[in-house]
Amino acid sequence: MTIIGVGLLGASLAKVCKERQITGRIAGFGRNADNLKRAEEQGVIDHGTTDLKDAVAGADLVVLCSPVASIVERFREMAPHLDAGCIVTDVGSVKAPLVQDIEPLLPEGVHYVPAHPIAGAEKSGLDASTADLYEGARCILTPTDNTDKATLERIQQFWEAVGMRVQILTAEEHDFIYGAVSHLPHVVAFALINAIGQLKTSDQEDILSLSAGGLRDITRIASSDPVMWRDICLANKTHVLDMIDRFSKSLEDIRKQIEQDDGASLKESFKNANGHRGKLVGQNS
Amino acid sequence: MTIIGVGLLGASLAKVCKERQITGRIAGFGRNADNLKRAEEQGVIDHGTTDLKDAVAGADLVVLCSPVASIVERFREMAPHLDAGCIVTDVGSVKAPLVQDIEPLLPEGVHYVPAHPIAGAEKSGLDASTADLYEGARCILTPTDNTDKATLERIQQFWEAVGMRVQILTAEEHDFIYGAVSHLPHVVAFALINAIGQLKTSDQEDILSLSAGGLRDITRIASSDPVMWRDICLANKTHVLDMIDRFSKSLEDIRKQIEQDDGASLKESFKNANGHRGKLVGQNS
Repeated sequence: MTIIGVGLLGASLAKVCKERQITGRIAGFGRNADNLKRAEEQGVIDHGTTDLKDAVAGADLVVLCSPVASIVERFREMAPHLDAGCIVTDVGSVKAPLVQDIEPLLPEGVHYVPAHPIAGAEKSGLDASTADLYEGARCILTPTDNTDKATLERIQQFWEAVGMRVQILTAEEHDFIYGAVSHLPHVVAFALINAIGQLKTSDQEDILSLSAGGLRDITRIASSDPVMWRDICLANKTHVLDMIDRFSKSLEDIRKQIEQDDGASLKESFKNANGHRGKLVGQNS
Repeated sequence: MTIIGVGLLGASLAKVCKERQITGRIAGFGRNADNLKRAEEQGVIDHGTTDLKDAVAGADLVVLCSPVASIVERFREMAPHLDAGCIVTDVGSVKAPLVQDIEPLLPEGVHYVPAHPIAGAEKSGLDASTADLYEGARCILTPTDNTDKATLERIQQFWEAVGMRVQILTAEEHDFIYGAVSHLPHVVAFALINAIGQLKTSDQEDILSLSAGGLRDITRIASSDPVMWRDICLANKTHVLDMIDRFSKSLEDIRKQIEQDDGASLKESFKNANGHRGKLVGQNS
């Protein structure tokens, strides 16, 4: 197996594959030779290289763990060096654009099964990697009409062996859903803390210090990596813009109810929110 | 001492005052006779009554723990029955409108020190009350030019005895700050879950079930009480509308950066958010 990108996701994948003996020898590609050397020394990978051709030579399975913005480029570079029969999967948080760009580049006999393991952590990089990062989390596979059934099954088994609960969606469906339940909430959290982060009064230089637990929780994901989220928002642009507009409409409804002192509708809006939130946490309220 | 409203805040206050022997006999007013009877039986209060005149008779200290929308009305009803020398404080989450309405109603010799203990819990009511609800939390006092200095000091000592860290702000400052760090985040959480709570795809009836921890955290406060938050939003209307507009502007900035594929500015927006969030959790990043 070859892992492209030995960061949090790639190194964690290598660790669990070693621990559970899911794959044989693990090669790792990266652009930082020091990082690869450390990964080798720690036994996370068997062979680290900054040469993509060398990294994928003879690989039966290649997992693209690069940032979402460089996955297509990495695939383009490695495609000529892949053996027939090789299966490629990835960890990209956005799927339709990747599928659209990668499928036409697939060499004869090479298969691609798009994947999005819903795993991550507040920290990133090799040092934050753990063998249990994927345990119990969901992994979305987004095969297309071109995806070979047997290959899909093999990749499903691979992610399951890693500890994940696999679910199959279309790439479009995936991007719509994660635009709603993940990308929009991140954008909202970033926008919220930006809106109030610099406010002050004549006496209070730092009004954030007066906040309670609610603000801490709602803005937790505003600590997420700026580069990763820039790339996700741009890759899933259409859905993210659509979701921002849906959200703005929902906010505008509440704004109007407040402006017009429409307490009955406002209470109804908040009660609806209670209900949706109850469903989310499984209370069926 | 008399507590007006024997719910989560009122009953918790009674409990801690009993436990620490901060006050003598505690009378409780409420509209639900059964609730008062239970509070009496549990020893939370010494005397429960649905008669406001009876409740405040001879009281040296009255704490208004009613919902924010009914605090002024309760005060209006009880004002004629307050003894000279009596001090009134409250727990309302919005301060300027209360101060504005209550100060002109103050009988000769009766003092009012507006307070907002930043305490609460996901559950409400007598059964959820605990003696440590206020422990270590912040309590904002918003005295005016009319507030007697000695009385202010006495009330500051009272809330400190309860376990709180007292901070003094003007009522306007308070409403601006909590409009930003509390009311806006609640509105945003309600609007967010409403925007995505009903979305589905042809194959997925319930897309929320596909979400990860981020959505759970960011929408936690969308489980807050609809009536309480309706009342807070309407009471602090001017600031809440202002904050919604500031937030909408911040969101629109990000939306434009995504729409125009302006990755550099988008990354900058997200980095700024990281910085504000870092300040919030004390990382100085």
